[in-house]
Amino acid sequence: MTQPQSRRLAAVQAPVIPIVGRWTAGAPGTISLGQGVVSYQPPKEAIDAAKSFGATLPDHRYGPVEGLPALVEAIGRKLETENRIALDGSRVVVTAGGNQAFMNAVLAITDPEDEVILPAPYYFNHEMAIVIAGANAVAVPTTESYQLDLRAIENAITRRTRAVVTVSPNNPTGAVYPESDLRAVNALCRDHGILHIHDEAYEYFTYGVAHFSPGSIAGAAAHTISLYSLSKAYGMASWRIGYMVIPSALDEAVNKIQDTILICPPAVSQHAAVAALAVGSSYAASHVARLDETRQTIFAALNQPDVPCDVPVSLGAFYYLLRVHSRMDSMTLTERLINEHRVATIPGSAFADPSPCSIRISYGALDAGTILEGTRRLVDGLRALAG
Amino acid sequence: MTQPQSRRLAAVQAPVIPIVGRWTAGAPGTISLGQGVVSYQPPKEAIDAAKSFGATLPDHRYGPVEGLPALVEAIGRKLETENRIALDGSRVVVTAGGNQAFMNAVLAITDPEDEVILPAPYYFNHEMAIVIAGANAVAVPTTESYQLDLRAIENAITRRTRAVVTVSPNNPTGAVYPESDLRAVNALCRDHGILHIHDEAYEYFTYGVAHFSPGSIAGAAAHTISLYSLSKAYGMASWRIGYMVIPSALDEAVNKIQDTILICPPAVSQHAAVAALAVGSSYAASHVARLDETRQTIFAALNQPDVPCDVPVSLGAFYYLLRVHSRMDSMTLTERLINEHRVATIPGSAFADPSPCSIRISYGALDAGTILEGTRRLVDGLRALAG
Repeated sequence: MTQPQSRRLAAVQAPVIPIVGRWTAGAPGTISLGQGVVSYQPPKEAIDAAKSFGATLPDHRYGPVEGLPALVEAIGRKLETENRIALDGSRVVVTAGGNQAFMNAVLAITDPEDEVILPAPYYFNHEMAIVIAGANAVAVPTTESYQLDLRAIENAITRRTRAVVTVSPNNPTGAVYPESDLRAVNALCRDHGILHIHDEAYEYFTYGVAHFSPGSIAGAAAHTISLYSLSKAYGMASWRIGYMVIPSALDEAVNKIQDTILICPPAVSQHAAVAALAVGSSYAASHVARLDETRQTIFAALNQPDVPCDVPVSLGAFYYLLRVHSRMDSMTLTERLINEHRVATIPGSAFADPSPCSIRISYGALDAGTILEGTRRLVDGLRALAG
Repeated sequence: MTQPQSRRLAAVQAPVIPIVGRWTAGAPGTISLGQGVVSYQPPKEAIDAAKSFGATLPDHRYGPVEGLPALVEAIGRKLETENRIALDGSRVVVTAGGNQAFMNAVLAITDPEDEVILPAPYYFNHEMAIVIAGANAVAVPTTESYQLDLRAIENAITRRTRAVVTVSPNNPTGAVYPESDLRAVNALCRDHGILHIHDEAYEYFTYGVAHFSPGSIAGAAAHTISLYSLSKAYGMASWRIGYMVIPSALDEAVNKIQDTILICPPAVSQHAAVAALAVGSSYAASHVARLDETRQTIFAALNQPDVPCDVPVSLGAFYYLLRVHSRMDSMTLTERLINEHRVATIPGSAFADPSPCSIRISYGALDAGTILEGTRRLVDGLRALAG
């Protein structure tokens, strides 16, 4: 038997979270500033909705490919009131999480060898999805503060380009893009006849800056795909519910993909999602004030002359991507921080950070005391290992 | 804006179920012998397991990419005792349904323009997945009784072939392949250094014949991918739980795909699945005797000299694929049966049946009385429209 794995899969990076997870498991007592998860569970209403699911036979049969009507309608109302997206010329499709929504989008619009532009550092699963689809991810640099470089994006567009991807608030950097930049990217995509894929999974996690949805721009519906997730907003990561807003011209393509991959999203999770959306965005808002305090505490601890790293501004999500002053590569630093200092982070190399040594820290999942101790270990570790 | 849809998606057939669904909705009182679903809901234990899910924070966080340990272990025991698959050189991955398992398999092993062999008539989502992946589906004929034509399969193998797909019991034909044929296909794949993908979603639905899993053949682990689903076996279609057994050499590739599409299967559904597997195969068996009666009743009604169709033997699943003696095409016949005789079926063209006019009837979902009335309408309709 020859190697059964395809060439395209051989070219996909290995997921880094399980690697860091193994290192962490091998170093008992490690505090994880690693995976991007929140500290809270779903609203009680969502869990209760799942408890009352399943009383009738139709509950257990396949549902509509785009999601249950009650959920699609609730999402429509949310998009209209919160995101100012009118669903005029576009449509909602519920998916098994935000990642599947991105995969649906890439499969719908790319042929093999087409190109998709990703400002780097980028969310690793986005690059993986593009390569798995047989297309090419084209990384373009961002600025020193991880903001979009509009000129670099425009210069990267070729006749094979099918889309530009933006994520705001950003994973892994925490950057929030100003409305003007998102409007500029959206116009660029319109003018070049390509799509703007915008990921808003962290829409509720901003600190003193406004969130903007480019799907709300007049005339944007035909060339904009907007992606959302309940995983962070409602603490529902394990339930696997996300959704996408797609141009009407992609209806048929996304229907085919969704039918082929999923048939329909899990119904019990959709029922929980309807109840979560009825609670609404105030649920996440109740946690964001606490996260903002944590964010500031971490900044104060790390942004010291004797800590050998740069801490670019982060006004969104729950991440910092630190540039570390070290000749070590990101993976080596990550492993040594775990083994020698019992603090886990994610290496910047997983996000294609052009900086030779960087680490992402996530502060969404832990209580304030653990975060403080984790940050103390990180500061000690950076002083000992870098500089 | 030019057409945003990719060429590969334009080449994918439109899902036929929603089209037939629209026709059916437009003809009130229609009895559906259409979609392949069962008449029963999950065991009470499964629904109860979902009710007790969600009490702790970890319940709501991402779980292992391959599925929760309790479910992976329960599946391992089931595979060993029922399918005689030892998981020696292979591994279980839980997916969001059997379709996602097939998509994972195709993406893991094909590069664009590679070929996958499908005996026709075939399950339409299999062909769709192959085309969405950018590969080519190569249809090979089956015999008059929808059995495998081993010579045709061997002759279709080229240097671009990556796999042969078999489905037994079969959707859409109800054919059950004998152990000797499955062994022959498996050996052919081994000898040609390609994979044998075998779909066993209907493993519990056989009538007087034995089910055989080619993954149990000594030495098969390295070149066999076996696919399963809880949708039919446990009446859990809406919960989206399936699983795949993959060669160890594909571990990394499937991990990457699963991480990128799904991150992890929905946890609440996995908890329900653990409870369903604890009830075991007797759950489906309790319904199969009744299905067998229905199967025989339908055969007796249709296999009459004055009904203008051939009824090939079906000893599995809950389907018949009828060859209708008509100059009408399958789609036209299907639409007219709904509009003029209030009985819905699925056109054979959706399954790439080479027969010019054929329809699939499904008898899994309905009570005996409704099936009798549906069959009566079908007989009347065929007499009126065909022949």
